[in-house]
Amino acid sequence: MDCRDRVRHWIIENGLIGRGDRITAAVSGGPDSMAMLSILHQLSAELGFSLSAAYLDHRIRKGTRREKRIVEIWCGRFGIPLVAGEADVPALARREKTGLEEAAREARYRFLDGFEKVALGHNSDDQVETVLHHIIRGTGLRGLAGMPVMRGRYIRPVLCCTGAELKAYCRAGGIAYAIDRSNSDTAFLRNRIRHRLLPAVRRDFNPAVDEALLRLAGNAREGLAALSDGIADLVPAGAADGSVTLDASLARGLSEHRLYLLIDTVLRDRLGVFRDIGRTHFNAVAGLIRAGRSGKRTTLPHGVRVTVEHGSVRFE
Amino acid sequence: MDCRDRVRHWIIENGLIGRGDRITAAVSGGPDSMAMLSILHQLSAELGFSLSAAYLDHRIRKGTRREKRIVEIWCGRFGIPLVAGEADVPALARREKTGLEEAAREARYRFLDGFEKVALGHNSDDQVETVLHHIIRGTGLRGLAGMPVMRGRYIRPVLCCTGAELKAYCRAGGIAYAIDRSNSDTAFLRNRIRHRLLPAVRRDFNPAVDEALLRLAGNAREGLAALSDGIADLVPAGAADGSVTLDASLARGLSEHRLYLLIDTVLRDRLGVFRDIGRTHFNAVAGLIRAGRSGKRTTLPHGVRVTVEHGSVRFE
Repeated sequence: MDCRDRVRHWIIENGLIGRGDRITAAVSGGPDSMAMLSILHQLSAELGFSLSAAYLDHRIRKGTRREKRIVEIWCGRFGIPLVAGEADVPALARREKTGLEEAAREARYRFLDGFEKVALGHNSDDQVETVLHHIIRGTGLRGLAGMPVMRGRYIRPVLCCTGAELKAYCRAGGIAYAIDRSNSDTAFLRNRIRHRLLPAVRRDFNPAVDEALLRLAGNAREGLAALSDGIADLVPAGAADGSVTLDASLARGLSEHRLYLLIDTVLRDRLGVFRDIGRTHFNAVAGLIRAGRSGKRTTLPHGVRVTVEHGSVRFE
Repeated sequence: MDCRDRVRHWIIENGLIGRGDRITAAVSGGPDSMAMLSILHQLSAELGFSLSAAYLDHRIRKGTRREKRIVEIWCGRFGIPLVAGEADVPALARREKTGLEEAAREARYRFLDGFEKVALGHNSDDQVETVLHHIIRGTGLRGLAGMPVMRGRYIRPVLCCTGAELKAYCRAGGIAYAIDRSNSDTAFLRNRIRHRLLPAVRRDFNPAVDEALLRLAGNAREGLAALSDGIADLVPAGAADGSVTLDASLARGLSEHRLYLLIDTVLRDRLGVFRDIGRTHFNAVAGLIRAGRSGKRTTLPHGVRVTVEHGSVRFE
């Protein structure tokens, strides 16, 4: 099965795109996003969605002019409207005192957050690296599941193809792409996993380790889905001020594992807090809920406050 | 907390030993099992269990005379009855056409299967290596959970201590131990993980990767326990001939994930089939159950036959 058919199946199987959707492809000019752009362009009539593209100049390194040029040329050829943005990532990193990689990610999501439905060009190699990175750094089942195929307005239509397949697709179709040199900089942990650890494991331990990690991630996703069955129904719609209030006695009735999943659902899916939340924070919130004493509160990273009041638990 | 107190808590927390239990410690003469022997000896009066030891000479390599001598001396000092056995592992490997490691494992379990309740000396480093080995080789949540603290008559009381802690315990107590040279033979995949991969990951990626893997295994165990909730109740007692018969309509009513766990429970916990069962076999059995056509059957590895007859599914 070629890349395009695989992506077509993947989109349908996972319900990534519905008829009438307005999809914005996030493109960097690299092979993954250029292949994605071309494939989505070809599928748009059949699957009944409209396509535009969004490009952000990070201003981190040279060569972005060439990237942007490639994106402009191909959007022109495909007749796809392009929104180009700029972010001064080095200034952002200085201001927020984070690393360049982190700041670039932040800037990218800020830029993309304005669009209705965004297609990201992550491939299955990225998924393998993400899963292995999470395993090594320390994670639970959620991190083991890797990047989701779909979260909110973000979809990953080429997560079913390897980087080599997407490159080959570009070459076969005569589609130009730029090479991001920062991908080979082994100062980034992520790149060290890609360029040193994974090749060593493939050579000395298991040549099929990529497939093994992808299967494990799939198992974790299935397991999580089964464990989370009905959890989302316990979370009422958020208030106008963005806070979420749960029924404390309902939450107390859950097993420990499901209570954690409930807290996780509120934090991630409702309050958008993904990072820096560890087991101690879960324990603090779970303890608060189990104790159920009115007026008690705890503060989590990113300024999230959790308060117990009269049989309810309020996250804000 | 020192090793002995940790083991004490571990035994109580996991319900490994009950009052009146007759525990047999499987000892090799190495530091892990010698420390376990001494700790169990000290705890036996307080926790109310009796203790004996079992030693198997594998006849794989030289130096076993010294191992056996150490075991005999210390069992004598502690006043612990010792059962010593012998297995011609090289001959067994030739006869069954397996590797030496595999044959030794087989011989060990045959020898130990005769005892009422057996304590195995695996430590937390072994657990880390097992989990990483499973991840690299390819596994689902079950393999990710690592070695169980307790399975049937087997318990692992020192799984909460590192190898270094158990060695230090022996040294502090003046307890002799033998070093198993085969542990440093990197021809074994397991040893390559121990001696090459883990040190490289600790050095270049995360010095706390051991804890990260142990936490992940704990999460997988909790997740599996939550997913398996009530599954064991669906499996009736086995017949006198060792076969297990399920109600097909009850099995058909389960979600895919829980149906797999049900099949896994029958195969592992009832028929004792652990290895060589892959996703295709699960799919075959699940398909048989879903189709529910009388007289249909499939054959799994290790000669297990699964037959659908008149609304029931028979495993034999």
